[in-house]
Amino acid sequence: MQDPTRVDDVVLSDFEVLKVLRSDENLKLIAVQARRRRKSELNDDAVDSQDAVVVLEKKPFTEESAVAFTSDLNTQLTTIMRNDIYGLFDGISTDKASIVNAIKVTTIYPATVDHIRKWSDQPFFMVRETAQDYKQITEPYILRNKLSLEWVYAVLSGKAEAERIVCNDQDTENGFVLAPSLRWDGVNKEQLDLTAIVRRSDVKSIRDLRADHLPLLYNLWKKCTATIKTKYGAEANELRAYFHYQPTYYHLHVHFTYLKEWNAGTAAGRAHLFMDVVQNLQTDGNYYAKRTMYFTLRRDDPLLTLLGDSHQLECF
Amino acid sequence: MQDPTRVDDVVLSDFEVLKVLRSDENLKLIAVQARRRRKSELNDDAVDSQDAVVVLEKKPFTEESAVAFTSDLNTQLTTIMRNDIYGLFDGISTDKASIVNAIKVTTIYPATVDHIRKWSDQPFFMVRETAQDYKQITEPYILRNKLSLEWVYAVLSGKAEAERIVCNDQDTENGFVLAPSLRWDGVNKEQLDLTAIVRRSDVKSIRDLRADHLPLLYNLWKKCTATIKTKYGAEANELRAYFHYQPTYYHLHVHFTYLKEWNAGTAAGRAHLFMDVVQNLQTDGNYYAKRTMYFTLRRDDPLLTLLGDSHQLECF
Repeated sequence: MQDPTRVDDVVLSDFEVLKVLRSDENLKLIAVQARRRRKSELNDDAVDSQDAVVVLEKKPFTEESAVAFTSDLNTQLTTIMRNDIYGLFDGISTDKASIVNAIKVTTIYPATVDHIRKWSDQPFFMVRETAQDYKQITEPYILRNKLSLEWVYAVLSGKAEAERIVCNDQDTENGFVLAPSLRWDGVNKEQLDLTAIVRRSDVKSIRDLRADHLPLLYNLWKKCTATIKTKYGAEANELRAYFHYQPTYYHLHVHFTYLKEWNAGTAAGRAHLFMDVVQNLQTDGNYYAKRTMYFTLRRDDPLLTLLGDSHQLECF
Repeated sequence: MQDPTRVDDVVLSDFEVLKVLRSDENLKLIAVQARRRRKSELNDDAVDSQDAVVVLEKKPFTEESAVAFTSDLNTQLTTIMRNDIYGLFDGISTDKASIVNAIKVTTIYPATVDHIRKWSDQPFFMVRETAQDYKQITEPYILRNKLSLEWVYAVLSGKAEAERIVCNDQDTENGFVLAPSLRWDGVNKEQLDLTAIVRRSDVKSIRDLRADHLPLLYNLWKKCTATIKTKYGAEANELRAYFHYQPTYYHLHVHFTYLKEWNAGTAAGRAHLFMDVVQNLQTDGNYYAKRTMYFTLRRDDPLLTLLGDSHQLECF
């Protein structure tokens, strides 16, 4: 049986932390780049000194762990602040087996430069894209560097993920497929996360939407919300339905997530409410042809270099 | 000297957990309603059995705690999954003094019904508010139930928080004050969080904004971003500048936060990018007088009952 403290043949403590790649104070997560210590320190004549990515994330509380922590007589509290009815403390469970102390550890070893980049914290910047910028800079860039959409076509044609599809409208103009996102278990309503992918392949993102796409949007909304209600018991007003701009891939799709969930992808500056998009097109069919769009990009996004430096955020 | 394990005169373990009020898996936070155990169990003839709110939140990693955790020979890993270069484990620090195990404990004791409600998890619902709904339902409700804005006027007049203000434009038409939000330490740029409050008191929210408020918005943007750059070293394109609709209080204010930060208040359905609002007013000075607005409300918000039940989300 494998020693549970070993990462392949290497003990976690054999790795020396080189650098913090990313630290998220909200999520209580830290990712570090680490390197195996030299052989001489280990009395071990094994592998080369290769890099690893080690991700530590504090685990969520359960009711059980909260009860165990508060009721344990040995829980140690250190007072930080006391004021009237309010108290603030640092607490430490001294119970060795305490589930409240569990930490999720993810290791990637050996890790390539790409793994390290993926886990590295990248600053974000707000970018301004006028309609002219889109035509002259963004659209040519997208068409030049379009990621393969083979997987999208495989889903639409039924060659892949057919068993995952929960609503399938075959209409070539207004049709779409709806399927749970891979990160959702398809069960827990509170983490509900589905994606609808339209069948027509000539709309890359909301930038390409015009008034004549409204029937597609109406059809998609009605059938998707009806399916989600029947299959998962969530009403339309319990959902956040939105597009991303910029999207991850350039084939029009809509995210349906449970309203209580929020993350970097639901933030203003990336997420556009489905209903706002519909209303904008109702008001002006060429809204997205004319609009200046503001969105956030990672520093390592080539589009930032193309759009970012030559533009001030101000539109006045 | 006070015993650090005591909450007022009561040991934390004297409290029995009655109910989970809120559990946030993203933030690794749990809030419970607790009640002091009965006297007979305690050999203590003190206080009545009153409710408490106890909030537990896992603390963020520091580089120091991550290094200590990974390099400790006694850290126990349990394998959850192993596949090629990827490993997933549960880790437990067996070091009693481990800073990686520290938990932030907040207590409110005795807690009133309002404290318990404030910490209770409430489902959210997406609400549709037409321009007519605003005139007939929302605005009368706001005016009837307006929270006291005394604290706003105290800030604007310099009677309160004068030392906190970092930019003060006295102009009665286009002036404002800019100050760090109370939850921000005013130092760490990555958590930057400031609020600009306009001087004129006749604009309750973005709903009341018209074309003739554009000079106010231009002035506020220019001076706030210049101040934030000089004082905190953050450029305008590192910021998320936004309004809330609905806002927490009905006197126009703008949030400036660091772009990397996101939370329930930055999500589409509540946050409106400053630049989008400016552009909407430039395109149509009566945009917010006519627009149907979509936003999220907690189930216990009286406005939800007024607006919610009689409206379908659809606008088609």
